[in-house]
Amino acid sequence: MFTNTDASIIIYTPHYERQLAGSLQLKKIRTALAQINPTVGDLSGNVKKIISYINRSRELKADIVAFPELAVTGYPPEDLLLKPHFILDNIDALQKIVKATEGITAIVGFVDKRDCIFNAAAVISDGRLIDVYHKKYLPNYGVFDEQRYFMAGKRCPVYDLGGVSIGVNICEDIWHEKGPARVQALSGAEVIININASPYHMGKALFREKLVTSRGLECGAAIVYTNMVGGQDELVFDGSSLVAGSKGRLLVKGRPFKEDLIVIDIEVRGVKKKISAANRKELNEILREGEFVEKIKIPVIFSKRKPSCRNRKPKAHPEEEEVYNALLLGTHDYVRKNGFKGVMIGMSGGIDSALVATIAVDALGKENVHGVFMPSMYTSRESYEDAYAHAGNLGMEILKVPINGIFKAYLKILEKNFKEMGVDITEENLQARIRGNILMAFSNKFGRLVLTTGNKSEMSVGYATLYGDMAGGFAVIKDVPKTLVYKLCEWRNREEGSELVPERILWKDPTAELKPDQRDTDSLPPYPLLDPILKAYVEEDRSFEEIMKMGCDIVCAQKVINMVDRSEYKRRQAPPGIKITPRAFGRDRRFPITNRYKSY
Amino acid sequence: MFTNTDASIIIYTPHYERQLAGSLQLKKIRTALAQINPTVGDLSGNVKKIISYINRSRELKADIVAFPELAVTGYPPEDLLLKPHFILDNIDALQKIVKATEGITAIVGFVDKRDCIFNAAAVISDGRLIDVYHKKYLPNYGVFDEQRYFMAGKRCPVYDLGGVSIGVNICEDIWHEKGPARVQALSGAEVIININASPYHMGKALFREKLVTSRGLECGAAIVYTNMVGGQDELVFDGSSLVAGSKGRLLVKGRPFKEDLIVIDIEVRGVKKKISAANRKELNEILREGEFVEKIKIPVIFSKRKPSCRNRKPKAHPEEEEVYNALLLGTHDYVRKNGFKGVMIGMSGGIDSALVATIAVDALGKENVHGVFMPSMYTSRESYEDAYAHAGNLGMEILKVPINGIFKAYLKILEKNFKEMGVDITEENLQARIRGNILMAFSNKFGRLVLTTGNKSEMSVGYATLYGDMAGGFAVIKDVPKTLVYKLCEWRNREEGSELVPERILWKDPTAELKPDQRDTDSLPPYPLLDPILKAYVEEDRSFEEIMKMGCDIVCAQKVINMVDRSEYKRRQAPPGIKITPRAFGRDRRFPITNRYKSY
Repeated sequence: MFTNTDASIIIYTPHYERQLAGSLQLKKIRTALAQINPTVGDLSGNVKKIISYINRSRELKADIVAFPELAVTGYPPEDLLLKPHFILDNIDALQKIVKATEGITAIVGFVDKRDCIFNAAAVISDGRLIDVYHKKYLPNYGVFDEQRYFMAGKRCPVYDLGGVSIGVNICEDIWHEKGPARVQALSGAEVIININASPYHMGKALFREKLVTSRGLECGAAIVYTNMVGGQDELVFDGSSLVAGSKGRLLVKGRPFKEDLIVIDIEVRGVKKKISAANRKELNEILREGEFVEKIKIPVIFSKRKPSCRNRKPKAHPEEEEVYNALLLGTHDYVRKNGFKGVMIGMSGGIDSALVATIAVDALGKENVHGVFMPSMYTSRESYEDAYAHAGNLGMEILKVPINGIFKAYLKILEKNFKEMGVDITEENLQARIRGNILMAFSNKFGRLVLTTGNKSEMSVGYATLYGDMAGGFAVIKDVPKTLVYKLCEWRNREEGSELVPERILWKDPTAELKPDQRDTDSLPPYPLLDPILKAYVEEDRSFEEIMKMGCDIVCAQKVINMVDRSEYKRRQAPPGIKITPRAFGRDRRFPITNRYKSY
Repeated sequence: MFTNTDASIIIYTPHYERQLAGSLQLKKIRTALAQINPTVGDLSGNVKKIISYINRSRELKADIVAFPELAVTGYPPEDLLLKPHFILDNIDALQKIVKATEGITAIVGFVDKRDCIFNAAAVISDGRLIDVYHKKYLPNYGVFDEQRYFMAGKRCPVYDLGGVSIGVNICEDIWHEKGPARVQALSGAEVIININASPYHMGKALFREKLVTSRGLECGAAIVYTNMVGGQDELVFDGSSLVAGSKGRLLVKGRPFKEDLIVIDIEVRGVKKKISAANRKELNEILREGEFVEKIKIPVIFSKRKPSCRNRKPKAHPEEEEVYNALLLGTHDYVRKNGFKGVMIGMSGGIDSALVATIAVDALGKENVHGVFMPSMYTSRESYEDAYAHAGNLGMEILKVPINGIFKAYLKILEKNFKEMGVDITEENLQARIRGNILMAFSNKFGRLVLTTGNKSEMSVGYATLYGDMAGGFAVIKDVPKTLVYKLCEWRNREEGSELVPERILWKDPTAELKPDQRDTDSLPPYPLLDPILKAYVEEDRSFEEIMKMGCDIVCAQKVINMVDRSEYKRRQAPPGIKITPRAFGRDRRFPITNRYKSY
């Protein structure tokens, strides 16, 4: 059960504490950050995992161990939260955890129930539930719907654990300057434990780091930021838990995209008897109607212990590595948590299916990834060679299923109905849909999940066939713009130190090969022009005037905006895929299909 | 532009006013309720419509006309609200409306912008924007996401319009007993205008009627409840605007599912000079921190006029008629607002496609509905006869496209890959997907929208094929349980006074005809047993114990719950369809796909 045996222990003595060390008795609190990967709804599995991390933390002589937000239920449980029996089962699950805390204190995210429900942190110590903190700031933007379910908390408790003053709060709470962390710090807290289920997007880990370290400085308290890890439908939680010191330094960081247990000794001055007049004044200004501070003593349950000590340096990663790892984890968890062994991928010889196959093999092992090459009369020799060469490099299976015979059977039966009409997009879509059907037939016959291969650029402008190349259970690179698809393949080749993705796939012109001599650029601007417009329009809600100022051609920009607006109906039927940008499609961008608004 | 020339005018003198009539000068305010059907994002179209209703109200000598919530933008605009230029364009649109209010007062729903945005009602009079009210209660449950976008208002203005005291508030505001209506009434308002975009579900109109009339009684004020009408993706707004008197009587009701203009003369005592001590006391108790009451005078712009008078009696409708009309309007508006002329329907000879075809013909006209009958080796003679007989009764086109040739072409090419495997669900799904492809080919070739025919019972348990019978742009009866599908067909036949839907379709066993002698009951409990379990589990979040208490078989209930839980991935890729129950799939029920929770 316990996956990380690499837990290291860091001793942290803040600078100002060291200056005071001569004159004052310092207190030390050994704190563990349990960066776990729970599964939504798997209450018994999550309890088992949490208890195994509690046990390991006890072995490492931690005083306190912090788990992520809603660790008991997984995050986000969405409308499971409307089921009263689910809430009760989650409370039963918490009871089991309470019993497993002998000789240690644990902070565990769960759903609390009073007249309504709360996103809550249980403060548990030595087999007793000491207190429950209720999240105050409930995010309701982007992918978040927390105000759909939860009431906001009013209390700001501060705990006294063996003479160390501790504040506990949850995720969004720490993003607010005058939020619970500030209140708790003003009330004497020197260690603030903030538990999270903070989903990944590009560059977010760095942004969080800056936020949490500056919050530590402002509050003059150590911030223990524990994040969830793992994939859940469209979301990936990247872990990257961290501890920031009271002087704004990053003290330690958990692994990205993997479970982890980080243990750190934090030395503090210890509980103050009184709140200063200045702090009291600021507190009165910050606290809103009905909100209040409370001091709660946790009975002392531990004695002296000798920590082993080893340091951990945060490591910088290039953007490609970060994104690739997010895609890896998201794919792995969607496939495994949904009980699939293998996946099917339509391999076209193009770069999108090449990237998806590479990710799938890295995530699931080559024996679990099955490619199908489905040539038509428009498929080139190069596509065949590239698909097979790449599958060979990956060591994965690839089958050939030609679609001409089926295509002709469709054309024959439809002939008399279509006789006066010319050839158009209908025949292109038919080919894509035959391929979709073949993949789904393999999926049905062998119980494998079909991974679709469309990228964000295509999904944005609707350059994809519903029930054709969009047919499948999980859209791995749905949120990856085409220009980044190239970068990821290049990065992966560099990492491999060899041509894992054949070079020709990287430089040949992209084509759907659905009619003679077709190129993506017949229908779309070149991707290096297209992607910035899409970013501005889809991710940043820029106006037409602002997009014009980027130096775009007016006709091109109008065409792109039109295509985005008119493709909403396709995206509504697309499989879920992994969010890696600040705004993905799916839960993150909720658009009407029936919509006559024109941005220009 | 103006669609309803049937506006009638009702004179309302409340009972208590009549008693006082001898001693007091009564004031009369002629109030128009403009129950319009705007289109989301069509700012210029909506402005044109609003102005045409203002003009008609002026012709009818109304003092004031009330439009629905967010009439300028359409409802719900969803993430269009995140585009700053959309907000600015909506304010420009409002300016055009302001200029068109010569000699009349209008209450118009729009998006107001300050530091953040508000769901707002503009109070406009004689070419001037007098004031803006901000909605206080922002729904964030069910299909609603208003806290994703809007800030809540704090002000409770009361307007003096020629000596008549008027309160204005928005939709959800009226559902709260101690909400703005109460505050405004305590502050002297005798007419409360509540503007709405309240979506339909079965029985909701009656529920609203009870709520609004009892709110009138509690407040001792007339409530002018103006609702939107029309279809928007998954939602239908049913109109049924109404006016409740200060004694709790229903005074007048707008037409359901159609645009309407209702004009009523309301007689009141007129503006009071002072708030009584008792009212002042209750006001102090109700108002929360930061909330306040304000009195605003609207300059008098009208003189005496002589109304014509005719009464309007609310009419009761059977449930089937109500639901059928909701489906009609939802289908009509999705097809028309998205610019499609015609629709394609796969006609199987079964009851689901029969109902969808009937609705489509009623909504769009027989010349715009095109059926395709796609027989396989498993299709019975009866299915053929029934599909053709029904299409004949409707007067719609029906084509025959046999799928055997294509099916054989698939089997042939897949043979060597599947050779050691038996026949299973794969071959059934293949047939459904060939039919989906054929319908989509017709859709692409002729620019028609494919209507899917799956009902709520099938969608709940996943008894449907992704990219097969689920392929299409709009799922008309997605929220209609199978047992109600029968009732709707029976009702429609009774209305017709003849066998519009052939009798045999109504009594033969439901079958997918994807293998020999198949019946729905091979895989599912009979629908009269299944539907109550689905209602309890899907719509009401009942626990397994509660479902057992309904008298269900334990194995059957477990099987049904399992099927519902495991089909979420299919529903996520389903086309949108019309909400007619308190909880539909889609925006209304947000479930994780990756979910290991078991309800038993």
